[in-house]
Amino acid sequence: MRIGIVGATGAVGQEIITLLSERNFNLESIRLFASPKSVGKKIKYLKENLIVEKIKQNSFKDLDILFFSAGSSISKKYAKIAQKNGCYVIDNSSAFRLNKNVPLVVPEINSETLKTNTRLISNPNCTTIISLMAIKPLMDLCEIKRVVATSFQSVSGAGNTGIDELIKDTKAAIHKKKFKNKVFDRNISFNVIPKIGDFESNLFTQEEMKLQNESRKILSNKRINLTATTVRVPVIRSHSISLNIEFTRKVNLKNIINALKEFKGIKVQDDLDPNLYPTPHDSSNIDDCIAGRIRIDYSQKNTISLWVVGDQIRKGAALNAVQIAEALRDKIR
Amino acid sequence: MRIGIVGATGAVGQEIITLLSERNFNLESIRLFASPKSVGKKIKYLKENLIVEKIKQNSFKDLDILFFSAGSSISKKYAKIAQKNGCYVIDNSSAFRLNKNVPLVVPEINSETLKTNTRLISNPNCTTIISLMAIKPLMDLCEIKRVVATSFQSVSGAGNTGIDELIKDTKAAIHKKKFKNKVFDRNISFNVIPKIGDFESNLFTQEEMKLQNESRKILSNKRINLTATTVRVPVIRSHSISLNIEFTRKVNLKNIINALKEFKGIKVQDDLDPNLYPTPHDSSNIDDCIAGRIRIDYSQKNTISLWVVGDQIRKGAALNAVQIAEALRDKIR
Repeated sequence: MRIGIVGATGAVGQEIITLLSERNFNLESIRLFASPKSVGKKIKYLKENLIVEKIKQNSFKDLDILFFSAGSSISKKYAKIAQKNGCYVIDNSSAFRLNKNVPLVVPEINSETLKTNTRLISNPNCTTIISLMAIKPLMDLCEIKRVVATSFQSVSGAGNTGIDELIKDTKAAIHKKKFKNKVFDRNISFNVIPKIGDFESNLFTQEEMKLQNESRKILSNKRINLTATTVRVPVIRSHSISLNIEFTRKVNLKNIINALKEFKGIKVQDDLDPNLYPTPHDSSNIDDCIAGRIRIDYSQKNTISLWVVGDQIRKGAALNAVQIAEALRDKIR
Repeated sequence: MRIGIVGATGAVGQEIITLLSERNFNLESIRLFASPKSVGKKIKYLKENLIVEKIKQNSFKDLDILFFSAGSSISKKYAKIAQKNGCYVIDNSSAFRLNKNVPLVVPEINSETLKTNTRLISNPNCTTIISLMAIKPLMDLCEIKRVVATSFQSVSGAGNTGIDELIKDTKAAIHKKKFKNKVFDRNISFNVIPKIGDFESNLFTQEEMKLQNESRKILSNKRINLTATTVRVPVIRSHSISLNIEFTRKVNLKNIINALKEFKGIKVQDDLDPNLYPTPHDSSNIDDCIAGRIRIDYSQKNTISLWVVGDQIRKGAALNAVQIAEALRDKIR
């Protein structure tokens, strides 16, 4: 396999490089592309020093799989060219996610939608992936009517510049100095910001609508209703989502917990022991999402509440993309 | 009026002192009580230097109103004695909140439950007060069936020691040093902790159940169902609550916004302008709670979502207690 990564110096690009080496992807070659300011940088991959290249129209010859993680505009500009060159493109941007000809894939959930003749595959939104890692096993247990999701999203969802801004803003706040925010609409240090993405005409944000629209596509279920409030919190890594899930019939707590435990890619950390529940610190830099605070909701019949955390750079982005590449590799062989 | 404050050196006690001076409460005298380690400390009130006293069985003579904000055990030990001495006791702890002989009061909502012959009044839980400041005007507009609340609670909800721990933990994290948490179950720096208070047998936490139990009492409405997930976030001051509210019939967005705008104690900060929504920074050190992100929820009929922030040391505790005292003063006169 000859791999290329577009956006190789970003938070997700870097994580893809880490994962490819961790997982022994068995590469023949790897090429890195990034924006002009990063061109010429050296990045270590195993024992090699790779040099970051400029993206050009003819960059994509002799590559089998290309990861795009440099924003929608770059994906829109180059993904089609890469496909025409015979590459499989795994796109982390939102550019093609709702395009009906483009599979939107979480390998544990809908890998059957990957076909060898489809050369463009979208990687879903991070909060959507992490939420669905908990929702899918429950949906297999019993039909879901509605989900109320409230997210606690870390700053690395906005890339390395988001981490940088949180740290600088926090240092300034501790020293009682002013800090002019650039990445986030408001100062994020010691604050929470209840808006991610622009507002849509229905007053929900783009990020909130992704949960509804992408989930329905990934789950192949247009009857499931998901409503969200997505909030940026001063956490460096890992998103958390509080989920309130209404089923169409009564569910049993033990079955819920077992369904989560048996699902690949999620573990359960739940007990009355005061310290057994997952926080973003617990899921950072690991592959699995973690569910906890699982309880029957007394306020409405057939309803439960739970809490799920996941590393949004790993499972929410880079890991999911690499898993798609692995599934493709296995199909192409 | 002769006022006493038990727990005068705590976050809420200090804020009560500030508010009494800001609001020209017209005091005849003020006495401060605190735990042994604070006895003898000087605290400024207007031009006076007050000296913190030890609480004794006979401390409460010649006082008209006593604020208790030193935890449930102190309230249980001394509140009855204070009452027997003829004082009105406004208790900020959870000790008596669900006692049917004790009014649980948010003055804008149920001041009619204050009677001059009831000498013990409970101040509700902070998250409950802030949530109800948004819920009450909407309930007056249309009957509410169910509320799904997810809170983002600041560390000062755990008092000054909570603020201290967040700052120390954050400094350690920035310098990549370890910090041993004491106040919170987990490290709170750059993290969120989905558990406040102990677990109840139904797997909800004490904090979560307060929202259901106290709200029903304050609203005199046993049919309203409230379910919560309460989460500690690394914010210094002000709680935020994401609310999803189901009504028994269709509601109109304009009427919702108007009802909130007209209600005393809450303001609306809501617009498609990308920066017009409230964050904890906006509500800190002010009296009003602020609602925003008000929108019709497409996922279920008769349902809306909104976001409310409020200074939990002010309206969530000290201000509400002082407002109760003001209402009492007006009734006693």
